[in-house]
Amino acid sequence: MNPIIYLNGRYLSENEAVISVNDRGFMFADGTYDVLRGVNGKLFHGKEHFNRLNYCLKELRIEFSDTEQLLPVIDELILANDLMNSEYSVYLQITRGVFKRTHIFPTEFVNPTVFISVKKFNPYIIEFNEGVKCITVEDIRWHRCDIKTIALLANVLAVQQAYEQNAYEAIFIRNGMITEASHSNVFGVIGDVIFTHPRNNQILSGISREILIELCKSNGYKIIEEAIPASRIDELSELMVVGTSTEVMPVVQLNNKIIGNGKPGKIQQNLQKIFTDYMKNYFQDTTEPDLKIR
Amino acid sequence: MNPIIYLNGRYLSENEAVISVNDRGFMFADGTYDVLRGVNGKLFHGKEHFNRLNYCLKELRIEFSDTEQLLPVIDELILANDLMNSEYSVYLQITRGVFKRTHIFPTEFVNPTVFISVKKFNPYIIEFNEGVKCITVEDIRWHRCDIKTIALLANVLAVQQAYEQNAYEAIFIRNGMITEASHSNVFGVIGDVIFTHPRNNQILSGISREILIELCKSNGYKIIEEAIPASRIDELSELMVVGTSTEVMPVVQLNNKIIGNGKPGKIQQNLQKIFTDYMKNYFQDTTEPDLKIR
Repeated sequence: MNPIIYLNGRYLSENEAVISVNDRGFMFADGTYDVLRGVNGKLFHGKEHFNRLNYCLKELRIEFSDTEQLLPVIDELILANDLMNSEYSVYLQITRGVFKRTHIFPTEFVNPTVFISVKKFNPYIIEFNEGVKCITVEDIRWHRCDIKTIALLANVLAVQQAYEQNAYEAIFIRNGMITEASHSNVFGVIGDVIFTHPRNNQILSGISREILIELCKSNGYKIIEEAIPASRIDELSELMVVGTSTEVMPVVQLNNKIIGNGKPGKIQQNLQKIFTDYMKNYFQDTTEPDLKIR
Repeated sequence: MNPIIYLNGRYLSENEAVISVNDRGFMFADGTYDVLRGVNGKLFHGKEHFNRLNYCLKELRIEFSDTEQLLPVIDELILANDLMNSEYSVYLQITRGVFKRTHIFPTEFVNPTVFISVKKFNPYIIEFNEGVKCITVEDIRWHRCDIKTIALLANVLAVQQAYEQNAYEAIFIRNGMITEASHSNVFGVIGDVIFTHPRNNQILSGISREILIELCKSNGYKIIEEAIPASRIDELSELMVVGTSTEVMPVVQLNNKIIGNGKPGKIQQNLQKIFTDYMKNYFQDTTEPDLKIR
């Protein structure tokens, strides 16, 4: 069955969903996106995802403030695609709309292009049990990585390199420091401290990153938001990549270096359990859980 | 009249030209483009533009080697849009094609998306006579600016800033050095030397930039491929932005600073004349002119 997607007010079969060649998303990567997870009609930290989406739209100056109006659209897509009893992920993309090609913003008002699709979410299992390999790649991306834009070419090239080396993810290194991975954040353990890059323009501070930091704190882990220097990779006893789909993924090999004893570490295993429990509670709760993330 | 464009083997009215939402150009900025100029069916340094296009495709690993097959398509578009007796510009975009969304390259072969449009070219006149204002903007782009990709969001944001300050172009400054402008290269005069950023991954070495360097040399100008430090902007007696449409545009104001005496300088005026004559000869010649650019 061809999935039903949402495009600019219409519900369409995915293979009928087309945009103009003059869409600024196609010509200029002039847009933002988000990926959410949900189950039983409830989105995991939907509010925070929509807050971030609004932040990205604001930074890009795309005039589309009413993102909350998209919530019933997502519900409709869950129904239309028969995902009421599944875990699912939601992909949401907004571009500056269609206008004849010129770098500057459209000189008259045009509606942003809004595209949403949903699909069944298949959680990782083998990877969680065995851990994954990652590679390091020079971080050649632009310097506003805090905006989740569709200008993902550097990420694509990095993760393709990873794929060709049988690695799960590409971890970026900028000026000698680990920033993040191509579509997840990086957490590493040195001694008894968990390190992760601070929230600034060099990383996309994932919602899962924010949640995990809070869960670390509330569970008595020492966590410091400080970048790990590439020169200290040898000192890592554990390494994790963290994201909406990735959750708290154990990295057991980085390039040719085995991390720890080559198996998921104790801290990662515990954090993944804490994270899963938190997520389970979140979905079961009819009220919002009280974890405050920034 | 709605223009006729070319999309994946078909000639279509522009408003009927649509691509899938799953085009990797729309989702990942996973593509390259070029802009050419022509008159009377002859492209200005078409060969060099196609060489660069092939370079970009190779660097992005998009499998589309037969770019020369697009030449008759351009001819067809010139005819279809009644531009046989006009100057025109050609826009050409190639993406990695349509595939279900995942960062890695498509795991089975898909045809790249090929889009070409042509339009009447209207040369600048007032701007050449009076000179233009530019602004400086921090260069936050990625670090492979030598590839002409559609991931143009940083350029869009920069040139929009320029537009809102009544400026013609945004000139990028990275680590205290002038790199290039949002869609042109930068040449500046200090003393009797013309400076322009060297050809490396920090700039898109425009075909016009290459031509102008050669024309400077063959006309006895001292030209050095060295970046101009932002700290030496006060020493500039002349400043130019250079490109396919821009030609050799005089910049008479940078931010609040007046360059020279606020009018197009002698070197710029001479270079623009040399450039125009060269272009005129190029188009009139039935054989390729003998200027060798790299």
